[in-house]
Amino acid sequence: MSQVLYASAEDVENAFYDAFNRGDLEALMALWSETDDVVCIHPGGSRLVGLHAIRESWKQLFGSGLRLRLKLHHGIIQSSPMLSVRSVLQHVVVEGEDGMSPPVIATNVYARGAFGWRLVLHHASPAPDIEGVFDEEAPRIVH
Amino acid sequence: MSQVLYASAEDVENAFYDAFNRGDLEALMALWSETDDVVCIHPGGSRLVGLHAIRESWKQLFGSGLRLRLKLHHGIIQSSPMLSVRSVLQHVVVEGEDGMSPPVIATNVYARGAFGWRLVLHHASPAPDIEGVFDEEAPRIVH
Repeated sequence: MSQVLYASAEDVENAFYDAFNRGDLEALMALWSETDDVVCIHPGGSRLVGLHAIRESWKQLFGSGLRLRLKLHHGIIQSSPMLSVRSVLQHVVVEGEDGMSPPVIATNVYARGAFGWRLVLHHASPAPDIEGVFDEEAPRIVH
Repeated sequence: MSQVLYASAEDVENAFYDAFNRGDLEALMALWSETDDVVCIHPGGSRLVGLHAIRESWKQLFGSGLRLRLKLHHGIIQSSPMLSVRSVLQHVVVEGEDGMSPPVIATNVYARGAFGWRLVLHHASPAPDIEGVFDEEAPRIVH
């Protein structure tokens, strides 16, 4: 998996949410940069720094038996040749449950390095459960 | 205020937290990029898009009478010539109260444009109140 070269931040993002939705730990971890200072913040969680801590957190999530599906809405993108920042609203669907959970706001940062584009930061936090949160200004569907 | 040119993302970040600590709305708003898709997420809040919504939120915060002071810890930086991403732990001190509040995790994104470096995204979310949160891996003091 670690040999895949992604030509754009969007490709990495697609692969990230695809791996998440499949609960595929190895596919998900292969998308991260191998630098020391990668950062991951799960909703309500502490800041995790480094691949080891990040891997353990996803392993725990995927091992919990809870199957989550994420759909993205309203992507807002700041791009440059070497870094790309994507702010998205994640609509969380819990498998086996009816209805929609409150959205999660995520800031994803991708960097271009010797191995193509990779994920360097994922910051997710719960948004308030208010009506119309998916109807905010500047709607742009990235997926 | 809007004529100040900042030569680095770090300079904007210093000015941002300085304006925050002084409760100076105009100084704080002058640091944002004037593009349409600036993003601000306050701890526990919805995603705000655009200068108007962002200004209103800060106006409300500063108008509430609550005086907050932020100190930054453990900055982790991803920089490129046109974009810079800074992940920090904000230690919040409420004026007139003893003790420390739980930390807030912030992802700040700065972009370089015709008017120098400006803030384009501020994503803040509460971290769990656990002991040792300021002793995490990769400690790097940026301020």
